[in-house]
Amino acid sequence: MLAILLALAAAIQTTPAPPGPADAQAQDWVAIPDDELLVFSLANGRRVVVRLAPQAAPVHVANIRVLARAHWWDQGTSVYRVQENYVAQWGDPTEKKPLPPGIVANPPPEYVQNRTAPAQRLSRPDPYAAWAGYSADGWPLAGDATRQWLPHCYAMVGVARDLAPSTGSGAELYTLIGHSPRALDRNIAVVGRVVEGMEALTTLPRGTGDLGFYKTEGERSPIVSARLASDLPAATRPHFQYRATANPRFAAWVRERENRNNAFFTVPAGGVDICAALPPVRPAP
Amino acid sequence: MLAILLALAAAIQTTPAPPGPADAQAQDWVAIPDDELLVFSLANGRRVVVRLAPQAAPVHVANIRVLARAHWWDQGTSVYRVQENYVAQWGDPTEKKPLPPGIVANPPPEYVQNRTAPAQRLSRPDPYAAWAGYSADGWPLAGDATRQWLPHCYAMVGVARDLAPSTGSGAELYTLIGHSPRALDRNIAVVGRVVEGMEALTTLPRGTGDLGFYKTEGERSPIVSARLASDLPAATRPHFQYRATANPRFAAWVRERENRNNAFFTVPAGGVDICAALPPVRPAP
Repeated sequence: MLAILLALAAAIQTTPAPPGPADAQAQDWVAIPDDELLVFSLANGRRVVVRLAPQAAPVHVANIRVLARAHWWDQGTSVYRVQENYVAQWGDPTEKKPLPPGIVANPPPEYVQNRTAPAQRLSRPDPYAAWAGYSADGWPLAGDATRQWLPHCYAMVGVARDLAPSTGSGAELYTLIGHSPRALDRNIAVVGRVVEGMEALTTLPRGTGDLGFYKTEGERSPIVSARLASDLPAATRPHFQYRATANPRFAAWVRERENRNNAFFTVPAGGVDICAALPPVRPAP
Repeated sequence: MLAILLALAAAIQTTPAPPGPADAQAQDWVAIPDDELLVFSLANGRRVVVRLAPQAAPVHVANIRVLARAHWWDQGTSVYRVQENYVAQWGDPTEKKPLPPGIVANPPPEYVQNRTAPAQRLSRPDPYAAWAGYSADGWPLAGDATRQWLPHCYAMVGVARDLAPSTGSGAELYTLIGHSPRALDRNIAVVGRVVEGMEALTTLPRGTGDLGFYKTEGERSPIVSARLASDLPAATRPHFQYRATANPRFAAWVRERENRNNAFFTVPAGGVDICAALPPVRPAP
């Protein structure tokens, strides 16, 4: 098993195969703007990069940019909650740190957006929505006849909030580390997706207290800084690209995800759920 | 946020609420037989308990019982693969350790079973199957008009195998540690579900090599022993219970999972996917 799998992996790496119908062409990879990348540096040396979604939650994302530019996360913040098969959450565990000027303390509930035609749709029904698919610029979507929203998939980033009608300022963020808890869809503002460093969060010890909060300060993982990539020196600035979806190659990619069929998968499913087919994002080569 | 959540959690713990329509009655909790619990002890002191599914994969589970009774896992085995958002896999990383007598080296492909009427069904369509629901004895199910199978949900346990037509002996097992990769349904034998100790697997460092395999022996997490609970001394034997599903209380539980509606969730989804609503299993009180 191991031997064959590794041989397969080696073959994949060393044999130049001709492009298939689902392979991206060079122009399908589109640069993500530097001010849509938020870079968290943890005290343990690991880095978590979030692609922000200003189109989905403009007021929340504006807050997050204010917080980053004020260096708000650079002092006294940490990953303070890790709940198995649910969330990793970070920010100020005391909830007492003053927010910088320019923050909208309780933004509007940016939980759904007006529907725009999705660039691609999945073939089979979604258990949580009338349809699921992809925006042209590489976001997963779920929606109904008039609305759409970013689904709570693994690695998506949301804004922690109090009970409704609180919407959360954006100072406290979380990502989904297990099976995607899509019951949160339309109940919370989704503001992005972790595009690098998920394992820096998923491998953290699970919280010792209720709901995965750490009981003691020493258990938390301190955050050293958070910066928009556009505010980092060019030499250390990360660059990422999303795969454009409004083309026949991505349509073929979706059909391949829905119908895995190779030497290992001999029974195609005929469908896939949106969180098991997140659109590709990669570091710029 | 933190303060309110913790206050809520405290309230949940300390206020004796009258039973709701979705709450289990005492008789709804049914003991899992001791010979259907497989207990792995890791060298780091952590324990992983798997509920076996002989009804779904009888030959594979018979193999696993032979391996446990031969103490096959007690020497030279480890968790040797952990791939982010996919699997943790354990057994003999060399694939050279002889199997004990009585093992069916390549069992039949026990990937699907004949359909039995599910005790409960989910309201909305499943992206991977005609229907999803629950067996009376607390297993998640997916199926079509004539067949059913155990879905590849988070924490379910499968038998690693080579390329088809290999089905795997049962010596190499894996569990799903991220968003449930249900494209594996009907392609692999599912033999159980981790009912204790998922975090002992999900928090392991991710593999440094291809497909999440560790490159070096030192990175692996050694397994000390694996025993059926029925072969452990009574004093150290774990006991677990599943929640029976063929009753109106569990039907109400499913409807509540499909329609979260409380002070936090203000927009019910109207549906849930089977892997986000795994039937409850608990340690015997």
